[in-house]
Amino acid sequence: MNLTEQMTQLAKQAKAASRELAKLTTAEKNACLLAMATALEQNADTIKQANALDMEFGAKHGLSAAMLDRLKLDDKRISGMARGLREVAALPDPVGKVLDERVRPNGLKLQKISTPIGVVVIIYESRPNVTADAASLCFKSGNATILRGGKEALNSNLLIAQTMIDAGKKTLAHFPEHAIQVVPTTDREAVPILLSLTQYVDLCMPRGGESLIRAVADCSKVPVIKHYKGVCHVFVDADADLKMAEEIALNAKVQRPAVCNAMETLLVDKTVAEKFLPVIGEKIFEKHVEIRADDLSREILSSKLSIGNSKLKPVAEQDYFTEYGDYILNVRVVDGVQAAIDHINFYGSAHSDSIVTRNEVHAKKFLAEVDSATVYWNASTRFTDGGEFGMGAEIGISTDKIGARGPMGLEELTSYKWLGIGNGQIRA
Amino acid sequence: MNLTEQMTQLAKQAKAASRELAKLTTAEKNACLLAMATALEQNADTIKQANALDMEFGAKHGLSAAMLDRLKLDDKRISGMARGLREVAALPDPVGKVLDERVRPNGLKLQKISTPIGVVVIIYESRPNVTADAASLCFKSGNATILRGGKEALNSNLLIAQTMIDAGKKTLAHFPEHAIQVVPTTDREAVPILLSLTQYVDLCMPRGGESLIRAVADCSKVPVIKHYKGVCHVFVDADADLKMAEEIALNAKVQRPAVCNAMETLLVDKTVAEKFLPVIGEKIFEKHVEIRADDLSREILSSKLSIGNSKLKPVAEQDYFTEYGDYILNVRVVDGVQAAIDHINFYGSAHSDSIVTRNEVHAKKFLAEVDSATVYWNASTRFTDGGEFGMGAEIGISTDKIGARGPMGLEELTSYKWLGIGNGQIRA
Repeated sequence: MNLTEQMTQLAKQAKAASRELAKLTTAEKNACLLAMATALEQNADTIKQANALDMEFGAKHGLSAAMLDRLKLDDKRISGMARGLREVAALPDPVGKVLDERVRPNGLKLQKISTPIGVVVIIYESRPNVTADAASLCFKSGNATILRGGKEALNSNLLIAQTMIDAGKKTLAHFPEHAIQVVPTTDREAVPILLSLTQYVDLCMPRGGESLIRAVADCSKVPVIKHYKGVCHVFVDADADLKMAEEIALNAKVQRPAVCNAMETLLVDKTVAEKFLPVIGEKIFEKHVEIRADDLSREILSSKLSIGNSKLKPVAEQDYFTEYGDYILNVRVVDGVQAAIDHINFYGSAHSDSIVTRNEVHAKKFLAEVDSATVYWNASTRFTDGGEFGMGAEIGISTDKIGARGPMGLEELTSYKWLGIGNGQIRA
Repeated sequence: MNLTEQMTQLAKQAKAASRELAKLTTAEKNACLLAMATALEQNADTIKQANALDMEFGAKHGLSAAMLDRLKLDDKRISGMARGLREVAALPDPVGKVLDERVRPNGLKLQKISTPIGVVVIIYESRPNVTADAASLCFKSGNATILRGGKEALNSNLLIAQTMIDAGKKTLAHFPEHAIQVVPTTDREAVPILLSLTQYVDLCMPRGGESLIRAVADCSKVPVIKHYKGVCHVFVDADADLKMAEEIALNAKVQRPAVCNAMETLLVDKTVAEKFLPVIGEKIFEKHVEIRADDLSREILSSKLSIGNSKLKPVAEQDYFTEYGDYILNVRVVDGVQAAIDHINFYGSAHSDSIVTRNEVHAKKFLAEVDSATVYWNASTRFTDGGEFGMGAEIGISTDKIGARGPMGLEELTSYKWLGIGNGQIRA
């Protein structure tokens, strides 16, 4: 079987499995998820052995210490996967919800009902725990998954998926065994082939760095829900409570700088810049963050700061487009809320942006006109997260506008259909 | 300016216009739409002159009589466009609706709000009235449109759009003049260039034949909502009211065979085939429909039919995949509801399918397992239509699962954003 045949078989099997999956009851799905969780824990040793092969391969092929750490599965991480599965089992079933209902003048009753999407391809990088997380969320929402992890994690991913499938089959005689599949080859050509099979694959969700996502989006013929990057902003308005602004800005930058909802650029209204910048600058420098400042804020910071400013640098325009995911912050002084909105809509990534202000008019303008998935008023950008949104779990954060936008939980893994229930209606 | 620069300018202007459009109030949008309607009527003569150039070009380039008829604009069709605009003005604004609302334990209030999508490219074939219809629906939903009609309709399309823009500008000083743009060239290369500009274009909706849609989907880097074809089915169950089945099947096939929600294949349960097929066969033949029948139904039809059967032919497998849009019907006898579902999910186009039955178990199985945008129980497939669904107007019917599915009205032309309203919340 050549690669095209192999991928076609995988996709075809997934489509068939998705039809069976859609018929499972909530109780059946939850029983499977709980059994899968137990099986992951019970097979921890075998999973660690498979993972050891991956670690060895990774070490041989020069993976960095950080990458090896992400690849590693230990008991704690395997328990974490199992806990994740149990949490997904406890969440409400997103399928079969009546989203809309109407009776037409001719008596035809229309119902808009949430349904699974069908076959979802997930493409991700090194962490093998994504295999269990993504597969469980897709399974609960009635979708068959085809998982494509990093080549360095193939053994771990295959074994995690197999463990879940085996547990499902033991739990349920009619468990569709192709509900969860891992692409069994590391051939790079597998992805474009898989993503050309529009008759079988309904959606692709790449998770990882921007280049991975762009490469996937570039080759895919099936719809892709993307999360390119998080270039998030906090705007400190002229009418901000400056103490609140300080706390929000600090939290958005340093609480966890590596994540996508961390702030990359702080925008400060010019009327409060002289007062606010030295205060926040000091706090930011205390946390060893480098500041890349525009001329005005650099002038204020360098003249007013009592502490050393070796970490104060001039900003370049390209920096405003950059997701650092690191202890680096752009600072820019802007002339009013409109200038802040324009900056964000031009340089931002439509992920998460916040205004700090007591002024309701400014706040409402900002909330309405910033064209991002999540827009905050007097809160940290760090809340953009399925868990924080009460979705229970998250498969990603979409910066797209078609399909899901923002944090994606179980509901965001569904589509819908219309049912038309009549008693013989025909069209005149 | 070369073509790439020209398309980039178009897309960039549309993006800027979309930001302004998003700020317009419902009253402002409606006033513009009403003024546009009046302007189309007042400029009917100029529009007909532009259309005459297109008709001349079309005749010279060998357009068929049917195509020329579709291209032609007369007073009646221009009034029709104006009436359409007035209807859109009367519809509720789909933007700014609160779709979900929750307060988190930390007091952060989350609101999910409907928003415009942004920039929508519409690609369509000869009918120039689509220009006004599509532009008005996009305008009302706050989206900037870039319209690409058939090359034979360029003069008509440009003038319709210009008339609408001029009326908008007269009505509203801050009307964004690039809210509605027609691609000003017939160069075929314009489309792939436009659809590569993911930083400006948010969605593409091709409307037309399957080959047009495939070509667009193939080249597009922006999300595409597709309506490939309508291969719709009526399944006459073992427990059907056969009189009702007759009326529904006849309506689904002959009331308007050229449209996408017309039936292409009639599936009949084997237990009622002997009784039902001769009755429906006679009615169908009376309407001059050719029947392509499988062996069993051909045997029944040829032996039991009292009228001539020169229009009775054997079906080929490929026929089951085919959207005829014509006086041709496939007929197949199937063994039970599961076989009907399997046939539809395999050969159908996930558009509209109906079961006729008194048996609730069969009906519920069919509604649940047929994986189509709209599934009916005891009603004609012909109801899949924005107007019939109470959406007021329709920009298309999606057979996709990401974004809108089924009839697309104003609501289906929106995305959403999350607003997070706090009083200083930071993440711990």
